Amino acid sequence: MDVLRACVLVDDAVHRRNYGQSLEASALRRYVIYQSGVVQWMLRLVVVVNLSLVLFEKPAVVAPFPAWLLLAIEAATLAVFAGQLAWIGSFVRLDRRLSSDPKHVGLALVILVTALDMAGWLIYGWRFTRILRVYFISYNSKFIRSAIRDIRRTIPAVLDVIVLLFFFIAVYSVFCTVLFLPLQDDVGYFASFWTGFTSMYVLRTTANFPDVMMPFYSQNRLAALVFIVFLCIATYLLTSLVLAVIYNKYRNHMKDEEALALALQRDALSQAFALLDADCRGSLDIDQWCVMMALLRPRFSLAKVHLLFRVLTSGGSAMHRHQFFNIVHLLNMHIETETPSHHYTWDPAMFAATASPTASLLSSLLGPALSHASRVRAASSRQGRAASLASLRSTASTTTSSRTTVQGSSSVTMRRLRALVQSRLFAYTVDALIVLNVVLVAVEVSSQRRHIPQEERTSEMVFSGLFFLEAVCKISAFGADFYFADGWNRFDFLLVSLTLSDIVVSLAFSSFFNNVFRYLLLLRVIRLWTTMGEIKRYRVLMSTLWQLLPALATYAVVQFMVFFVYAILGMALFGGLIHDGNPDLAGTVFADSGYFLNSFNDVGYAYVTLFELMVVNNWHVIAEGYVAASGTEAAWLYFISFNVIGALIIINIVIAFILEAFIIQWELNESRSKTPLENELESFVLNHHQYMAQFSQVSPESSTGTPDVVWSVKANHNIAYFLQHMFSAELAAEEAASEMFVLPNDVGASLRLHH
Amino acid sequence: MDVLRACVLVDDAVHRRNYGQSLEASALRRYVIYQSGVVQWMLRLVVVVNLSLVLFEKPAVVAPFPAWLLLAIEAATLAVFAGQLAWIGSFVRLDRRLSSDPKHVGLALVILVTALDMAGWLIYGWRFTRILRVYFISYNSKFIRSAIRDIRRTIPAVLDVIVLLFFFIAVYSVFCTVLFLPLQDDVGYFASFWTGFTSMYVLRTTANFPDVMMPFYSQNRLAALVFIVFLCIATYLLTSLVLAVIYNKYRNHMKDEEALALALQRDALSQAFALLDADCRGSLDIDQWCVMMALLRPRFSLAKVHLLFRVLTSGGSAMHRHQFFNIVHLLNMHIETETPSHHYTWDPAMFAATASPTASLLSSLLGPALSHASRVRAASSRQGRAASLASLRSTASTTTSSRTTVQGSSSVTMRRLRALVQSRLFAYTVDALIVLNVVLVAVEVSSQRRHIPQEERTSEMVFSGLFFLEAVCKISAFGADFYFADGWNRFDFLLVSLTLSDIVVSLAFSSFFNNVFRYLLLLRVIRLWTTMGEIKRYRVLMSTLWQLLPALATYAVVQFMVFFVYAILGMALFGGLIHDGNPDLAGTVFADSGYFLNSFNDVGYAYVTLFELMVVNNWHVIAEGYVAASGTEAAWLYFISFNVIGALIIINIVIAFILEAFIIQWELNESRSKTPLENELESFVLNHHQYMAQFSQVSPESSTGTPDVVWSVKANHNIAYFLQHMFSAELAAEEAASEMFVLPNDVGASLRLHH
Ligand code: NA
Ligand code: NA
Repeated sequence: MDVLRACVLVDDAVHRRNYGQSLEASALRRYVIYQSGVVQWMLRLVVVVNLSLVLFEKPAVVAPFPAWLLLAIEAATLAVFAGQLAWIGSFVRLDRRLSSDPKHVGLALVILVTALDMAGWLIYGWRFTRILRVYFISYNSKFIRSAIRDIRRTIPAVLDVIVLLFFFIAVYSVFCTVLFLPLQDDVGYFASFWTGFTSMYVLRTTANFPDVMMPFYSQNRLAALVFIVFLCIATYLLTSLVLAVIYNKYRNHMKDEEALALALQRDALSQAFALLDADCRGSLDIDQWCVMMALLRPRFSLAKVHLLFRVLTSGGSAMHRHQFFNIVHLLNMHIETETPSHHYTWDPAMFAATASPTASLLSSLLGPALSHASRVRAASSRQGRAASLASLRSTASTTTSSRTTVQGSSSVTMRRLRALVQSRLFAYTVDALIVLNVVLVAVEVSSQRRHIPQEERTSEMVFSGLFFLEAVCKISAFGADFYFADGWNRFDFLLVSLTLSDIVVSLAFSSFFNNVFRYLLLLRVIRLWTTMGEIKRYRVLMSTLWQLLPALATYAVVQFMVFFVYAILGMALFGGLIHDGNPDLAGTVFADSGYFLNSFNDVGYAYVTLFELMVVNNWHVIAEGYVAASGTEAAWLYFISFNVIGALIIINIVIAFILEAFIIQWELNESRSKTPLENELESFVLNHHQYMAQFSQVSPESSTGTPDVVWSVKANHNIAYFLQHMFSAELAAEEAASEMFVLPNDVGASLRLHH
Repeated sequence: MDVLRACVLVDDAVHRRNYGQSLEASALRRYVIYQSGVVQWMLRLVVVVNLSLVLFEKPAVVAPFPAWLLLAIEAATLAVFAGQLAWIGSFVRLDRRLSSDPKHVGLALVILVTALDMAGWLIYGWRFTRILRVYFISYNSKFIRSAIRDIRRTIPAVLDVIVLLFFFIAVYSVFCTVLFLPLQDDVGYFASFWTGFTSMYVLRTTANFPDVMMPFYSQNRLAALVFIVFLCIATYLLTSLVLAVIYNKYRNHMKDEEALALALQRDALSQAFALLDADCRGSLDIDQWCVMMALLRPRFSLAKVHLLFRVLTSGGSAMHRHQFFNIVHLLNMHIETETPSHHYTWDPAMFAATASPTASLLSSLLGPALSHASRVRAASSRQGRAASLASLRSTASTTTSSRTTVQGSSSVTMRRLRALVQSRLFAYTVDALIVLNVVLVAVEVSSQRRHIPQEERTSEMVFSGLFFLEAVCKISAFGADFYFADGWNRFDFLLVSLTLSDIVVSLAFSSFFNNVFRYLLLLRVIRLWTTMGEIKRYRVLMSTLWQLLPALATYAVVQFMVFFVYAILGMALFGGLIHDGNPDLAGTVFADSGYFLNSFNDVGYAYVTLFELMVVNNWHVIAEGYVAASGTEAAWLYFISFNVIGALIIINIVIAFILEAFIIQWELNESRSKTPLENELESFVLNHHQYMAQFSQVSPESSTGTPDVVWSVKANHNIAYFLQHMFSAELAAEEAASEMFVLPNDVGASLRLHH
């Protein structure tokens, strides 16, 4: 039982959960069920269903569902959330009552209010609470909640700058209105204080520049100065200030949040260690470790469990408390045992560049065992071609003591074929063919609109044939299993075979050819993108970007929540207002630009309209259209508030996050300096292969000469993992700095001397 | 002579100059002449004259000058620069020959080529080298040179991202062209690969969104997704990446540059100290210090020189080497002795919030002597009113041992008047009046266009009367000298008296009233801005911004250099092309938008057009106009290259600088934590006032009870000073960290444990 408790605590630490669940047996069981993957994914599905209702409610994007069906579905989702709340209530500790946690109270209130609103809908036919549905997203994701918390804490400081910005715009617009009122201005940019203010607010976003300047510039050249000064201050200085304040404040809040999470994590791990170390020996042995891991990760092989033990204990036989703490780093990696003929591993050279310190630790640990085999295999993949070939060459020259490059029962022809496929020339030729193909497509697209002449078809056939040949070479050199294990190879093969089949079909039915052909070409363009990733300097950039994506997804969801609220609001305020025949819109720029689709007539249009408002360009045309259609200047409030929230605050938070995360991640990827722990473990790496051998299951088809067991390490793309090492260096430094106060006097003095 | 040499070295260190001048007597004299303010300002004037020639050359903005006059002026400026070069050659050390420094070689080349080009102009009537004139700017400013050097070093990393961005746009535009070519599109956004590429590049800048999407969105709602995905990747992700890379790289280069400058500075100070300390005693006494300061800063009073000595030596009698090094911090401050009735000092509470560590060190040092008196006086100024009143109150409660708040020979009425003017109620009333006045102006502007009714005039008279009363109260409470010492008071008084005189004039000549009246109102609006600065949270923001301005000016000049080059190029390529009757422009969006003034017909128009291109909005309309007018798609190259340089790289460098500088400066202004040096000096502060007394010149009119000598400290607004403390904390930490390697073993171990 204690082991189970410890496992739950460790799992919580790994996933940074802090439910405060009771450690009593039945509560623990309920907690484990709640945290199981199936339950969590089901809950997310219910959230998606709940938020998708809006697609089927009038005005429906898809087909309008009958009201009873919508009500039934919504009631079902509410019932699920109520059940979730009750279930959580059944396992939390007594000192962490649901009523003491605002998020649970909030959920109860949202469910209650929504239920009342649904009853009201049956009677009055009106809904008010659809906006509240976004709450279910934040309730079901701790990352969203923590992002929102950070944003909320950043708001006061940002608000100071925004107030300053609005104050400046207000004062400057009075100035401009007084200045330009007597001048000729057909559009009426400065017809009153209010239009002057909106003109200048729009000018802050640059959207009406230079149009707003032209009437006055044409009357007096010096008028340009008034607008240039405004843009320099309001757009370049004050709007950059918003970014600066957000960057500064937001990252501090994120760091504080992270420090708290780390403290909780350590606390849980301490408890877990105390539970596991029942004899109070201060360390765990391999048996205790295996028992725990059997519960914690039942699907891990014995070999993997042993490997983790050895990694954590640096090859020792007892795991101490501080070594045990590193379990969270290890369990956040994907470490997999594979028989190489069934799976395809990512190029490890790629990991070395992209993975976290722990990942690189592991990959350096597994280096000799793993790199050789997987590099050979990676050589045949499109993804890591150039890089892995280069590394192959260097491996061949440095690790001469290891087995020869390609071994086994192959003939001389086969060996030559492999050498050919692995050669740099082959890789460059294929790349050149892809580029040539794209260039020809571009030329063709430029010259032709609807008709495809025969020579184009011929060139297409030639390319398809060449790419087919490439696939055949690779398959015969390394085997079909191996070839198809790689996603890009599958993509290539699909493309080539589709193009070939398309050609075959077109030879039979000539008319069918055109359309399918064009859409296949699109896919071929994507191949070029992967070619770019083979150049080292871009690979670091691209892999860094790639690692940011899951963390950015959190902000995408936060922005979606803002969109959802404004879409529901927009449909309530402006639904059905915009249509081609609306006489109020006659003569507006909105109508002249053909913006009738930028409406709130259903939630799909609303999302696109909001996206356009977020992008900012021409947003004033849309806003002015709604002012004209609704007949009230108050419509500006909707658009200006969205501009401030969706386009100024959230976008700058995203940029600030990209700035911070990208810089840290990039420097990590670029420098790859070794930590003391890495150095310490290097000696251990040398005899690890022999140790592993005792656990290896020899695969029957190991005739291609790949090692018996291959460990692959993949960087885990989740935000928890990302946040953890984003601030790890800084938090460690701060801890070290706080440690500095207890330094011996002479060191303190020597540090002060250099101040 | 040695003292003079030392002074030159110290002055170089303070101003961060590194000419490598010879220390030989006559060379030193020439160097001192060269570095004198008059010579330096004259040189800047010549640069301005040289760059202003373009205003008078055909097509001239002002009046076209005759060719011989332009040639004569340009030849004269060239002669000045040639003379400058020769003069510099006369004082540099032998090991630092002019020919070994690229900047001098560059100047010689520019002068030579320009001279040849001028001769060519006389013969062929064409100029080619006007672009080279920007070189004179960079030659004459080390800050511009260093900014350009940092930018140049940042380019390779930025280029990687830009290549990635262009690659993505190119691939995606092939994708979009193939996808959208078969669909209806009247504008022809995807008529060919090239137009597809330009459409997508413009979309990257958001300038043609949502217009580019509308034709396809109206045919298929899913088309919106194609554009949304592109914007998310190209605009939000990759363009933010440009900022991230610039932020990361640029600040590192700036820091390296700063570290180098500091090393040179220390080197010069070491040399200077060695020269001054001729006896090799390892320290300077007060006499040596006074001799040096008499040469270095001849206009400093003896009291000030003594003060500086005591500050640097912490009140001791010998100045050691490391104390001497702090001279650069002190000399970069403006420390002034004033008799309070002649000058008005800025609110010291303001300094405490805005000044550098050294400034605050000094202000805390001078605290008791200075703060009391100047706070009383500041209380009557509009600028620091609210804040200083608050601080007055707190001062009154804490420093009860000091003199009473307002003393002297004044009557009870006078004392009451002073209390009234200093009261919070008075300040708030005046603020409320200003706000009310602005609101009334806004209402009036909204309701009326040309005619001003009588009640508006009456309200204006009432306000003018009230503000006049405010001025009278303040003047009678504290005296005219004291009132007019403050800039804002002068501004207030000018405004009030102009309005009053306007009213008087209007009573006589009614028709004259309208115009003057309106323009006076404009000025009144500015008063509101100062009200904002009285709120503490905004004051920190605003003073931080204010401190950034001089440093930002450097980037403004760099951007001006880009503008100049593109303006000259633009006039050569497109001069005279754009005019209202041009048949090539008929039917373009350019013509429909009335953009005919956005031309390159003279350098004034060119600057405004380039500013519009920099702001990015609608830049494609301008670019397309030039493509239509010039009849070649190659015109895009001019506009896209300017977009990349002027709007992507430089703007992001400015934003990165604002980010870095603002965050550091703001945190400094917000936290104001004390350094060990500050703590150390606090005891010295206590007996400083008595020490100062012996140098004070008692002013005859000290009847108002202000202290005899007032020292005011002003933060120096130059970029050298700014850069210095921008990275000081970080560079000090790095130095301390490099010191860490020699720590005793046990400390190193304790640090490693926490990793
Ligand atoms: Na725009
Ligand atoms: Na626009």
